[in-house]
Amino acid sequence: MPGNFRSDNEYPVAPEIMAALAEVNAGHAHAYGEDAATGRLRQRFRELFEREVEIYPLASGTAANSLAVAQTCGSIGAVVCHRDAHLNTDECGAPEFFSGGAKLLALDGPDGKLGPAAVEETVAASLAMGEHASRPRMLSLTQATELGTVYTPDEVAALAAVAHRDGLRVHMDGARLANALATLDCCPADITWRAGVDLVSFGATKNGAMLAEALLVFDPADTVELPRRRKQAGHLLSKMRYVSAQLEAYLADGLWLRLAAAANRRARSLADGLAACPGAELLHPVQSNEIFMRLPDALAEGLRERGFEFHPWPHSGPGVYRLVTSFATPDDAVAGCVAAARELTGAGAAAAEA
Amino acid sequence: MPGNFRSDNEYPVAPEIMAALAEVNAGHAHAYGEDAATGRLRQRFRELFEREVEIYPLASGTAANSLAVAQTCGSIGAVVCHRDAHLNTDECGAPEFFSGGAKLLALDGPDGKLGPAAVEETVAASLAMGEHASRPRMLSLTQATELGTVYTPDEVAALAAVAHRDGLRVHMDGARLANALATLDCCPADITWRAGVDLVSFGATKNGAMLAEALLVFDPADTVELPRRRKQAGHLLSKMRYVSAQLEAYLADGLWLRLAAAANRRARSLADGLAACPGAELLHPVQSNEIFMRLPDALAEGLRERGFEFHPWPHSGPGVYRLVTSFATPDDAVAGCVAAARELTGAGAAAAEA
Amino acid sequence: MPGNFRSDNEYPVAPEIMAALAEVNAGHAHAYGEDAATGRLRQRFRELFEREVEIYPLASGTAANSLAVAQTCGSIGAVVCHRDAHLNTDECGAPEFFSGGAKLLALDGPDGKLGPAAVEETVAASLAMGEHASRPRMLSLTQATELGTVYTPDEVAALAAVAHRDGLRVHMDGARLANALATLDCCPADITWRAGVDLVSFGATKNGAMLAEALLVFDPADTVELPRRRKQAGHLLSKMRYVSAQLEAYLADGLWLRLAAAANRRARSLADGLAACPGAELLHPVQSNEIFMRLPDALAEGLRERGFEFHPWPHSGPGVYRLVTSFATPDDAVAGCVAAARELTGAGAAAAEA
Amino acid sequence: MPGNFRSDNEYPVAPEIMAALAEVNAGHAHAYGEDAATGRLRQRFRELFEREVEIYPLASGTAANSLAVAQTCGSIGAVVCHRDAHLNTDECGAPEFFSGGAKLLALDGPDGKLGPAAVEETVAASLAMGEHASRPRMLSLTQATELGTVYTPDEVAALAAVAHRDGLRVHMDGARLANALATLDCCPADITWRAGVDLVSFGATKNGAMLAEALLVFDPADTVELPRRRKQAGHLLSKMRYVSAQLEAYLADGLWLRLAAAANRRARSLADGLAACPGAELLHPVQSNEIFMRLPDALAEGLRERGFEFHPWPHSGPGVYRLVTSFATPDDAVAGCVAAARELTGAGAAAAEA
Repeated sequence: MPGNFRSDNEYPVAPEIMAALAEVNAGHAHAYGEDAATGRLRQRFRELFEREVEIYPLASGTAANSLAVAQTCGSIGAVVCHRDAHLNTDECGAPEFFSGGAKLLALDGPDGKLGPAAVEETVAASLAMGEHASRPRMLSLTQATELGTVYTPDEVAALAAVAHRDGLRVHMDGARLANALATLDCCPADITWRAGVDLVSFGATKNGAMLAEALLVFDPADTVELPRRRKQAGHLLSKMRYVSAQLEAYLADGLWLRLAAAANRRARSLADGLAACPGAELLHPVQSNEIFMRLPDALAEGLRERGFEFHPWPHSGPGVYRLVTSFATPDDAVAGCVAAARELTGAGAAAAEA
Repeated sequence: MPGNFRSDNEYPVAPEIMAALAEVNAGHAHAYGEDAATGRLRQRFRELFEREVEIYPLASGTAANSLAVAQTCGSIGAVVCHRDAHLNTDECGAPEFFSGGAKLLALDGPDGKLGPAAVEETVAASLAMGEHASRPRMLSLTQATELGTVYTPDEVAALAAVAHRDGLRVHMDGARLANALATLDCCPADITWRAGVDLVSFGATKNGAMLAEALLVFDPADTVELPRRRKQAGHLLSKMRYVSAQLEAYLADGLWLRLAAAANRRARSLADGLAACPGAELLHPVQSNEIFMRLPDALAEGLRERGFEFHPWPHSGPGVYRLVTSFATPDDAVAGCVAAARELTGAGAAAAEA
Repeated sequence: MPGNFRSDNEYPVAPEIMAALAEVNAGHAHAYGEDAATGRLRQRFRELFEREVEIYPLASGTAANSLAVAQTCGSIGAVVCHRDAHLNTDECGAPEFFSGGAKLLALDGPDGKLGPAAVEETVAASLAMGEHASRPRMLSLTQATELGTVYTPDEVAALAAVAHRDGLRVHMDGARLANALATLDCCPADITWRAGVDLVSFGATKNGAMLAEALLVFDPADTVELPRRRKQAGHLLSKMRYVSAQLEAYLADGLWLRLAAAANRRARSLADGLAACPGAELLHPVQSNEIFMRLPDALAEGLRERGFEFHPWPHSGPGVYRLVTSFATPDDAVAGCVAAARELTGAGAAAAEA
Repeated sequence: MPGNFRSDNEYPVAPEIMAALAEVNAGHAHAYGEDAATGRLRQRFRELFEREVEIYPLASGTAANSLAVAQTCGSIGAVVCHRDAHLNTDECGAPEFFSGGAKLLALDGPDGKLGPAAVEETVAASLAMGEHASRPRMLSLTQATELGTVYTPDEVAALAAVAHRDGLRVHMDGARLANALATLDCCPADITWRAGVDLVSFGATKNGAMLAEALLVFDPADTVELPRRRKQAGHLLSKMRYVSAQLEAYLADGLWLRLAAAANRRARSLADGLAACPGAELLHPVQSNEIFMRLPDALAEGLRERGFEFHPWPHSGPGVYRLVTSFATPDDAVAGCVAAARELTGAGAAAAEA
């Protein structure tokens, strides 16, 4: 049995979410978010995060990230982020576009994570330039990171403290927030606002929704302009109930964490199995549903020939590959991939003999 | 039985489209439009329009309009449009934002329609200003118009001829294109590219889809930058198959035209019934699913008290109201509204006596 | 002797200002406004306006206007202005560009002036649209107006009161502020901040400077971002002392008002002389250095053949012309133009006979 | 005698240029570049560069750079440049702002210079991302570089060849082009279009002008939109004759190269003198009028106490300083600085003894 480890985006919608869409499709409802489902969702997020929070349901994570940049930075601000951050490498300049000119200050850091010292130094250097340089106004952390690792609440808090000292807002790109939470086993508040996060791009699409993300904003000061910014960017959806219903189902009864835990579990199995093969090297701790490995050419080729699909990851160097699991990845696909890798590298024989 | 005439956006998704979503939700598919449903949809649009056409499925009509503006105008261009055009009055500056500064040259014209002379004069005046004024680069026509009327193919052709003479592209905002076609009874090609239209915002959401629009582009020259523009604006949807599947079902077996015809028929019934009431005045021909009427205060109030909902339309003056019908508006709601209006104005009694 | 009535921009620099440039050209000075001349200028503006004011010397009036728009509106704001305002008609979309998408709400009004009722109604209509329309955030008044008229302090105050009530900032485009003041005979404070103006584009180039304008900002809240906005737009001039020195000389000993008074006086002479000719019609009161007249074709042609230059003004209709005077327009040119007009229309003979 | 080595921007205007301003200040002239001085300047540039070239006189180098970015990249393009490039580090996001969202791909390279391999690799990586990454559309080279070094014609040609292969335009930021040419001893054509450069930011302000730069464009295709882009950014100067006259005088009789040669000569003297002091380290070849040195704290402090001014250069690490010379830097200031450095480090005594 072959397997798709290309992206969690390629897997289908969870049945519970399809059911919610069918259910919400009755009668008329006010457009543009003035509907009952969106109202319930707002309340649900408040319970989940244990405080007031404003929500902006969206169909795209790039929109969530970029609206956060536009809101906090404007054209003269700068975003401090990791060099591998999705908003730096994968969004075709969306943050610059939405903000009308904000600058990205992209930093290195091991395992896809930023450290407070580098952030502090970068901010200080920019501020020392005065009006000649964009003013750092937002720190963006990706959780789980682009390399599949996870920030602990203490790590987030230390970064946020540095950022807040210089007046920056702290943003969390949570395209895979559920995967991070499933690993951290803390409550959403602990990894976000209690640790100093001001805005969250809350992702659901990669983890079982159809088209459903939300920008979450904890500080009411940030909500004055966001409704018009969302509309102006074409992201105020007319039939918003159909996005809100997805998110409502996603959050109901812990579905989001169950789906993420399933994906994470498969990623660990896959990583453990592949890493045991001679020549394969796991590059980062597996703390969510993404694996980054250096694979011998023959192994990578062999797996692909047998129908296992995954992307090369040139950002991380030659011979590096990314494999992603989903809640819907069949367990057989994981087991099949590991078995094939063992066979291709002779590890299977060795294991069998032992 | 009360009735919602507020907006076609407030009605549910057609069952055929819900079924298509359920059907497409199987197995994995490449993300970002590289899936089979999107491929089939591209082919379907080519058949429907009888020529090559590039398609950009989207979740928002504002995005479709604004991407067209950005593509054709850039920051130094200008859009010639009707003063009541959605992109001028209802999109919170989205065209200016997407393009980074394009100017809207909004003109008056009876029944929500532009005429060639006004367009020609406006373009000439701008060009005469040289570098001191934005260069007109796009003519945007709304079909059906914001006032529920329809351009004939000849009218479009006359406007397009004027626009093309000065190098403008012609864009059609087809948020209600199906409603226009159901009235015009011509084929899609006749009212678009054969009449000189270069880009179409093809709407489906208002007419029975969940969240599904598409920007259609006839000239390959306009397709070079659009993929990155769409991505940069956060409108490249990862799980695009779920948008494409909606559009596929929408176009299958003439569903879109059947839905539109049903909505239009109800609009005419409603208009005929209300216009027969003393004091009520129909302001524009009813050629799609929107009605604009001047109503006596007592009539408007009375209808609302009985549960009939509709918006005042201050753009068109005091005492003016807009009523919109949908494929899903119950016939009873239309009949009930007319009956209530008769009763409120005494027209019912008169009619009964006669 | 022929005469140039095309634009005050076409006349040379006042000798006092040339002398100031020669004087400041000695030794080194810190760049980017950290020089002594700029420091003195800041102080000078504070004396002149009788209060704290932050100044941003610039080389372009379009930059001054557009920085004001960007600062007050951002991308989701709207500017309320007169339809003939320079920033609406002559700046190639600069306000939209600097702000990243702000919308211009251009209103009609007699003699190039706005009235409070129209402003109030426009703002209310936009606010009623909520997130679907750009939020009005700045009212821009042109002083003197594009039609050569002048707002009184009371008129400004009435407009500002309406604007402030809804949270708009009030901007004055003072490209010809000196000409207005020479007519009004009030102090600068009275026509600006005491009447409710928050930001002023203070022009000097048209009235005898080489390249020197300044954006004046009364509210410190508006100064936080402006330094970076100016830099980002390429308008932070490295050798700023050479702009500041022009403005310093311009303001010294009332030079600016003397130059403006001379230009205004010539405009009145010219208007009086031409208006007395049969068929010539003065369209607006002459309250600064611009005249708008409807002239018979033969008269307009005849004057041009004799070497008098001036622009047609199609904005105001066919057969309308604009004539502009400068402090440096020779009196003989004015007298010569009037004499020629009399001769061409036979008015000279009539006057001589009388 | 103390000395200012902070910036060439802090020195006065060359007398020949002041004289030209006095001379052009007579009579009236058409505004916005339709004057005789601008016409002569265009012709002068054509002779100098031995081919057709369109010119856009400006008051700011940031404007020249950013207009080039906007023109070549638009919002979805990317600029490949050196990490230390002025447009990356010193322009407060102006390239991102003017273009509405272009991305800067900033690369490392020794001595402030880019190499073809790094450029090629960066472009290829971006292109491989397809619509998910901004498309590289402009390569920007700084000449002389921000670290005072110079590209040879062969080096430029090799870089341009790589860029053109992938459809990028090549831009030269020539804020100190005269200083580079004075070192290279080649003709302007050789280091620009003959080597593959498409657009040049031609600087004069740092080398003796008051406020005068020009964007030079060799390909007519790039001139279609630039006039409106310049206007829209507030950089179309009304009394342009006063900028053009500066540039005309700057180019007359080789003045620009004489001024630059004088500045370069002083830089070499200063570098030679300081580099001979124990502990001082010259970081890059001195090929223009900027010197970058690592200085012992005591030496740096001692020089400053004696009135020699210069900036620390933290971009290049701790203990690094930049010293800049001008055509107008007194020779005594250079000699005095070297003498003081010798004295402070004991090198003077050693030299005297020797």
